[in-house]
Amino acid sequence: MSETCFTPTPRSNIKRLPQRGEYDRATIYQILDEGLICYVSFVVDNQPYVIPTAYGRIEDTLYIHGSPASRMLRTLQKGVEVCVNVTLLDGLVLARSAFHHSMNYRSVVVFGTVITVQDPQEKLAALYAFTEHIIPGRWAEVRSPSPQEIAGTLVLSLPLVEASAKIRTGAPNDDEADYQLPVWAGEIPLQLVASTPIADSRLRSEIELPAYVQNYTSKNRV
Amino acid sequence: MSETCFTPTPRSNIKRLPQRGEYDRATIYQILDEGLICYVSFVVDNQPYVIPTAYGRIEDTLYIHGSPASRMLRTLQKGVEVCVNVTLLDGLVLARSAFHHSMNYRSVVVFGTVITVQDPQEKLAALYAFTEHIIPGRWAEVRSPSPQEIAGTLVLSLPLVEASAKIRTGAPNDDEADYQLPVWAGEIPLQLVASTPIADSRLRSEIELPAYVQNYTSKNRV
Repeated sequence: MSETCFTPTPRSNIKRLPQRGEYDRATIYQILDEGLICYVSFVVDNQPYVIPTAYGRIEDTLYIHGSPASRMLRTLQKGVEVCVNVTLLDGLVLARSAFHHSMNYRSVVVFGTVITVQDPQEKLAALYAFTEHIIPGRWAEVRSPSPQEIAGTLVLSLPLVEASAKIRTGAPNDDEADYQLPVWAGEIPLQLVASTPIADSRLRSEIELPAYVQNYTSKNRV
Repeated sequence: MSETCFTPTPRSNIKRLPQRGEYDRATIYQILDEGLICYVSFVVDNQPYVIPTAYGRIEDTLYIHGSPASRMLRTLQKGVEVCVNVTLLDGLVLARSAFHHSMNYRSVVVFGTVITVQDPQEKLAALYAFTEHIIPGRWAEVRSPSPQEIAGTLVLSLPLVEASAKIRTGAPNDDEADYQLPVWAGEIPLQLVASTPIADSRLRSEIELPAYVQNYTSKNRV
């Protein structure tokens, strides 16, 4: 059973604007579960790299995957330190001064060392998590990975041990004198929204659009 | 006058799925101008960090900013190597097999060394670019930064010299045999959409909602 809260470490502790810091595991997992892309940073010969990639979570483990031919994954499978970020942009914050403009966001950072998943059972579970993370209900309908496809996918796991979130919500924080200015101020909420699905041109004509595609929402999909 | 295309370097060259690589400056700038958040990665004592932050572009320079109290900016102002990523998620790609599920995206990576902007004129121009990048038309309405605010903002510049884009569009690429499966396949387009603006609770009652707020769209805003 994992702890309710992550313990802040020197690198995961939110030092700047600490009131925006969150270490609660449920809050952090909700952000990870809502996000679709994570940003994985790593170091090669003292050079930083950051690469966006899909991911999945199973309990206290984050999984990423890709082709064994990928430079990122070839590097990561050596078991290097990573820093992974998932950020949900919730809105633009329009203040009365240029200086106090901001954004509302929920952002998670995870530190740790990635491990190559060797066990085919764990690999298959991770592949299931990737698909269901993106679009719940999909796995049961599609062709499952063949043994060759499983073997040809590099899956890496990152234990969720050292993580924190930074969250900003609500109205702008203007300087007291600026509240008198004749300037509109407030928030423009932003959301990742699905529009009408586009059927593949080779889709067999008798196949109907499934409800989980038609009603897809990125938010609260899990 | 800058070159039409970036020259691929060993680190910016798209090796994996090279057909998705783009080095055209106009394409890359369009992605940077549409994005709202960039992910800045850097190294401290061989430890990678990645931090999401707002940004702006003026011609061939990317600017980021923040408080001099921020750990990231304190590190970056020493003039360290960074890798910056901006990714626009355009859709989910639903294939007939789990293996071929993908995403449509436009992603830019920039490599280089950040420089602290000292010149107050360039700093002010960068602050203008941040605001107008997020919401065109805003700068003219709000209180401009005071000399103290300009002095209290750390602005860093990154020359756009070494950059590349990776782009995926369109339908899934299924295995030939899978096209016969009774599975819906295609794309779910995704877009960052603004919903009804929320006025600040202290907004003076006579202030009307400006058109540039009411009609805000993240896409094609520039």
